[in-house]
Amino acid sequence: MAYINDTYLDLQGSYLFAEVQRRVSAFKTQCPEASLIRMGIGDVTKPLVPVVIEAMHRAVDEMADSNTFRGYGPEQGYDFLVQQILRSEYQSKGISLEPSEIFVSDGCKSDMGNIGDILSDKNIVAVTDPVYPVYVDTNVMAGRAGSIQANGFWSKLVYLPCNAENGFVPELPKEHVDVMYLCFPNNPTGTTLTRGQLKVFVDYALKNNVLILFDAAYEAFISESDVPRSIYEIEGAQECAIEFRSFSKSAGFTGIRCGYTVVPKKVCAYSRSGKKEPLQALWNRRQTTKFNGVSYVTQRAAEAALSDEGKRQTSEQVAYYMEHAKLIRSTLEGLGWQVFGGVNAPYVWFKAPEGLRSWDFFDRMLREIHVIATPGVGFGPSGEGYLRLTAFADTKSTQEAMARVAQWKR
Amino acid sequence: MAYINDTYLDLQGSYLFAEVQRRVSAFKTQCPEASLIRMGIGDVTKPLVPVVIEAMHRAVDEMADSNTFRGYGPEQGYDFLVQQILRSEYQSKGISLEPSEIFVSDGCKSDMGNIGDILSDKNIVAVTDPVYPVYVDTNVMAGRAGSIQANGFWSKLVYLPCNAENGFVPELPKEHVDVMYLCFPNNPTGTTLTRGQLKVFVDYALKNNVLILFDAAYEAFISESDVPRSIYEIEGAQECAIEFRSFSKSAGFTGIRCGYTVVPKKVCAYSRSGKKEPLQALWNRRQTTKFNGVSYVTQRAAEAALSDEGKRQTSEQVAYYMEHAKLIRSTLEGLGWQVFGGVNAPYVWFKAPEGLRSWDFFDRMLREIHVIATPGVGFGPSGEGYLRLTAFADTKSTQEAMARVAQWKR
Repeated sequence: MAYINDTYLDLQGSYLFAEVQRRVSAFKTQCPEASLIRMGIGDVTKPLVPVVIEAMHRAVDEMADSNTFRGYGPEQGYDFLVQQILRSEYQSKGISLEPSEIFVSDGCKSDMGNIGDILSDKNIVAVTDPVYPVYVDTNVMAGRAGSIQANGFWSKLVYLPCNAENGFVPELPKEHVDVMYLCFPNNPTGTTLTRGQLKVFVDYALKNNVLILFDAAYEAFISESDVPRSIYEIEGAQECAIEFRSFSKSAGFTGIRCGYTVVPKKVCAYSRSGKKEPLQALWNRRQTTKFNGVSYVTQRAAEAALSDEGKRQTSEQVAYYMEHAKLIRSTLEGLGWQVFGGVNAPYVWFKAPEGLRSWDFFDRMLREIHVIATPGVGFGPSGEGYLRLTAFADTKSTQEAMARVAQWKR
Repeated sequence: MAYINDTYLDLQGSYLFAEVQRRVSAFKTQCPEASLIRMGIGDVTKPLVPVVIEAMHRAVDEMADSNTFRGYGPEQGYDFLVQQILRSEYQSKGISLEPSEIFVSDGCKSDMGNIGDILSDKNIVAVTDPVYPVYVDTNVMAGRAGSIQANGFWSKLVYLPCNAENGFVPELPKEHVDVMYLCFPNNPTGTTLTRGQLKVFVDYALKNNVLILFDAAYEAFISESDVPRSIYEIEGAQECAIEFRSFSKSAGFTGIRCGYTVVPKKVCAYSRSGKKEPLQALWNRRQTTKFNGVSYVTQRAAEAALSDEGKRQTSEQVAYYMEHAKLIRSTLEGLGWQVFGGVNAPYVWFKAPEGLRSWDFFDRMLREIHVIATPGVGFGPSGEGYLRLTAFADTKSTQEAMARVAQWKR
């Protein structure tokens, strides 16, 4: 008699974006003529840049010819891409890593979800709050979250609240913690840490043997010089942190799937017998056993995106989105609302006026001005009272949405 | 203090193909002038067929235009591909499945590795022996395998031997089993079950509430009419079996990564409280949480491979490889060796003559005729004394290798 992994039954049913979609669909049935502007989900809208398209066509042609055809590639990614990542993303910032510390994958979400495979289910896990739901849900699946409580918190997770009161800089955990997820620039709040603020976490991790899982999926949107693009800009981070990177937002790869994870060989965790084990070897074993590498065509696309010309072309897209973020920020600020993020990230996070709750203000925006935001509480209890707008819509829609917000007679 | 998943330390170090590579490299250092023919690893060599290449170029062009650009797709795969799979692979065989029972992925290896996520670590798992190493290793990682014993068997796994004595038709388990992996056409032996033989397993699974994980990655190579292409050809299988399929071998996708997993809604397993839970919902949750779908370009490639013209073009490649299998079979049989597989699969499995052990005969083939096979014992204890040859090399190499075997003065 086969048995399921019971922790799956603990997962909460209504996923944030599904509930948003349900409310939007219900509204569309009532008001089919309303012109909706979607500023909820963080998906890119600009097409792939020319240098990436050219690289993909070339790679497809290689696959058509028996002299250049490629079958199974290395599970960890082709050397041409690994070397390009090292050069363009790390050596250029004075960070020295080895090729075997880079693992190319089909995206951050897979890696952030799968990393738990190599970690004990007994670890005490800290997450910032609000938080990207994948960190929480994958720990529920692994049995590390405990049970959900009436206040929306999981019994075994340690929450580090981020809110207007602490300027979205989480405090260090007060209780014992083994593993800590950090995401900066932050999804959902769009806020960042300075080098000095991130150093506090690295120092804490080194002192307490805590493993930091650092999600840097939005690093391409950083514009301020005191905000680190990689956690490895902080001394000692190569001994305590795994970094997750993605081409999804920086180069518009949400539909072609590529990311990478950096596991420095010095990052260790303990076995039951108390021995220090390097996580690079464990992750390598996980990836070679349960994964078969990324499409050759996609890897050539990623290589092109990191070339000098690729960087130039994709940075224009980033600038295009960040113009939207600027407009959103200035519009909401003009109304006297409390606004966060949107300077080093494509997300603007704001407090619903008049102390309204997230879903209530979501419904009012949807019904009265037909703009779809994401309710902050969907990202965790500390998100209550906030909403997120993304800068990924096109310019015309963003301008129209902001005109509606500005003229809104509430 | 972060802790590792200790089961990773139980994994066996020297992976089969790494050891093959080590011996080959050592030989090449001794005899750099030897002309080696590789018939070990099961990777395709023919380029992608024209209809697939055209579909990929079109899809790349769509990604270059904001009117046709696609960002995040459904984690379960685009409807166009799911519908094509249903039509071409199932409805055509009289099998009725729903679109939501098909999950497109980046390949069989990922899905066969990840499926354990939704199953309890307490399940007793049966594998055939010899076996594709991923089934065993992923169960070691999940803690379901117990400890390795001196005889090469894991203490908690139930082994179903397949050998010349039972005609490579495993017997039903004698002990209690919850989950059973079956792979037909078989990797590594290339042997198959008839409908009647597979029905015995389905009936057993239904009677004992056993979950069958059916790996059908090689179904495209089946030529005999009484060999089922899908386990769902057997009545009742939609209540007890999950089927894994791949484009890797049927359409040469080892380098562009696409497969799919079928989880019928009637397939259930039990929760701790004894309630029947449909696995389709659990797998859907797993995939939407830890996976972000397959490249749009790859999904268009897969759709094209299953079109009428795609089927025609890829079936020519299959026929090309199967000509090699035929030549390998007839050559080895001509020497009076015991030969299996190679009729409905691109693998030929043979018994080393004179009772030699797998690695000993591997070494002799390598040193004396410079042909690289795969030692059967690397796939499990019951593979001792056997070797595997693949039909995936090109025609010239295959002919040359078989000429060397035929003229071999041992």
